[in-house]
Amino acid sequence: MSTWLLPENIADVLPSEARKIEELRRALLDRFRTYGYEMVMPPLLEYLESLLTGGGSDLNLRTFKLVDQLSGRTLGLRADTTPQVARIDAHLLNRQGVTRLCYAGSVLHTRPRGLHATREQIQIGAEIYGHAGLEADLEIQQLMMDVLRLAGIEHVRLDLCHAGVLLALFERDPAASARGETLYEALAGKDVPRIDELTHDLDPQVRDALRALPSLYGDASIVELARERLPQWPAITRALDDLAFLAARVEGGSATIDLADLRGYAYHSGVMFSAYVAGVPNALARGGRYDHVGQAYGRARPATGFSLDLREIARISPIEARSSAILAPWKHDDVLRERVAALRDAGEVVIQALPGHDHALDEFAFDRVLVEQGGAWVVKARQPNAGA
Amino acid sequence: MSTWLLPENIADVLPSEARKIEELRRALLDRFRTYGYEMVMPPLLEYLESLLTGGGSDLNLRTFKLVDQLSGRTLGLRADTTPQVARIDAHLLNRQGVTRLCYAGSVLHTRPRGLHATREQIQIGAEIYGHAGLEADLEIQQLMMDVLRLAGIEHVRLDLCHAGVLLALFERDPAASARGETLYEALAGKDVPRIDELTHDLDPQVRDALRALPSLYGDASIVELARERLPQWPAITRALDDLAFLAARVEGGSATIDLADLRGYAYHSGVMFSAYVAGVPNALARGGRYDHVGQAYGRARPATGFSLDLREIARISPIEARSSAILAPWKHDDVLRERVAALRDAGEVVIQALPGHDHALDEFAFDRVLVEQGGAWVVKARQPNAGA
Repeated sequence: MSTWLLPENIADVLPSEARKIEELRRALLDRFRTYGYEMVMPPLLEYLESLLTGGGSDLNLRTFKLVDQLSGRTLGLRADTTPQVARIDAHLLNRQGVTRLCYAGSVLHTRPRGLHATREQIQIGAEIYGHAGLEADLEIQQLMMDVLRLAGIEHVRLDLCHAGVLLALFERDPAASARGETLYEALAGKDVPRIDELTHDLDPQVRDALRALPSLYGDASIVELARERLPQWPAITRALDDLAFLAARVEGGSATIDLADLRGYAYHSGVMFSAYVAGVPNALARGGRYDHVGQAYGRARPATGFSLDLREIARISPIEARSSAILAPWKHDDVLRERVAALRDAGEVVIQALPGHDHALDEFAFDRVLVEQGGAWVVKARQPNAGA
Repeated sequence: MSTWLLPENIADVLPSEARKIEELRRALLDRFRTYGYEMVMPPLLEYLESLLTGGGSDLNLRTFKLVDQLSGRTLGLRADTTPQVARIDAHLLNRQGVTRLCYAGSVLHTRPRGLHATREQIQIGAEIYGHAGLEADLEIQQLMMDVLRLAGIEHVRLDLCHAGVLLALFERDPAASARGETLYEALAGKDVPRIDELTHDLDPQVRDALRALPSLYGDASIVELARERLPQWPAITRALDDLAFLAARVEGGSATIDLADLRGYAYHSGVMFSAYVAGVPNALARGGRYDHVGQAYGRARPATGFSLDLREIARISPIEARSSAILAPWKHDDVLRERVAALRDAGEVVIQALPGHDHALDEFAFDRVLVEQGGAWVVKARQPNAGA
């Protein structure tokens, strides 16, 4: 086995891609900051129970486990940062008012989501705690669209759905709730015969509503159709009102509503949204409300947020990161040394050619050189195709 | 067991500290960039053999292990990024000329270095590959001092030593080499009786040299004393010449030479340096030459570099990160919305107060408010002690 082989679905990030990821990371964190989101850095490793709290069995299967020599207990490598941030809000900060938090860091998955998917995402996200009103959902929606725009990603389609619809139906008929996972899969695949089969013995209102969900897909006007076809229970009406409010306020993209797209319904408690672009099958960013997550840490706070994988965004983003550099010779010369230091202080990239070598670079284009002229060192344009 | 408890020597980083770490991270990476270092992002997980290559048994003990479901093989969580970057240089980039690489990311340790030490460091560092001359060591030394200065850390003492001295002595007497680990510990502790005991049966020149090492400690003038007290073999003379060259070129701090401080001698092949400040027992940054590391990846390239723990630097750095913010109301008002967006585009932090809440913040000080005046929204200074 060669020592340079990496595990499947694990990869190095090389200079030009790394630079792009780093620039997007900064742009997104800076944007979060202008909205008042404070950064936190939860650890990569935690006791497994803490990491899995409120996360469901899918998160468990995706989490790498290892043993802590100090305690003898099982640790997990985080597969999602959101529960950690909820723990920080609930327990560590323990503020009474609204708290906005953001984060950026690696998450690891035992198995890739698809054949070519990475098992190490760079997850970046933002969360608001402490406000149950739609204003918080709207801010998260706007922030998510705002950072996709910053990354140069256009024609975003925002898919909205609401966990409250399914939760209201499950609450009415426990038999439906018991089939939650199976029903969710059939709904996600819009598998009508399977849905018919799974609902035939349910409460008639619940049955009809579940059977209606796969067709309740389209632009914002679908809300009105849903009002006709779903039971007029307060929880469902409120969910549809929420969707109408948010769909009318999508900026910089189009809104679609899909009442059957309930991925994460076990985790979420309100509006959920996913951002898509043409040609990319998976959502670029996902978010939603999950008011109960902090409960396990002793404090259920209203919460809504979103996250995305920076590597995926960098792959799609049209922004170019390559930049220009000045090539300087290496000499024992105090004047040269001062000149190089001053150029670097001004933000210029100055690469000193070490004696006897070529300097091959992915990331920088040497468009200028530092040359001696009458005792001074001056920056000059470099002839194209000159050797480094 | 409470779900909010973290493993020992693992901690969350809360807003004000996280902001400081993030600002230092950017400042250091930007500085690396102005020297022409290209960023890479090696993965957190690799096959264990790859991670441990060239690293010695200490690295093995410090590395968390886990099982890869996809391959059934053992993976390691990186405890040091340097071997990964050497692998990237040797195998992935495979350039002929000089390559400068840098990185920033978490490393994890099974056991802490001390009672209060973290097991999750944020390691940041820079490496030059492909140049065996002292110019590369000097650039790394200058860069290391440069970034400590950027972090506001003053009165740095740069401790220089050279793996070549011990390696030359070991090469002369295999019996000394066989006691390498024990001898290193006795030398590191300047434990003279133990050194006497471990050297009494060695080649007399090697014995006398090893016994002399603990006293060869002091400012740059110690090199001349070492020339008298150590054998005048070419490898030792070259090592002392290197130290004299670099000690004379320490900028922004003082140089000391300690010929017995050989931590990492098994890993390093040339000059090694550690940066200290008064009141902090451990080195803030460490670096040195390690020409053989790439060998295991099929390509031994000259290499020198340094790294430091950003969390530790942030703890010591006097730079303040707290910044000012504008408090804005939440209203359905397009003019307000546009004004807030424009302020954010200009880099201002504008926090919209969600209805009915206090907004408690660690990181931001609300020194301004956005208020309506005759149909327009204007930024005004905020009265001290006004509620959020």
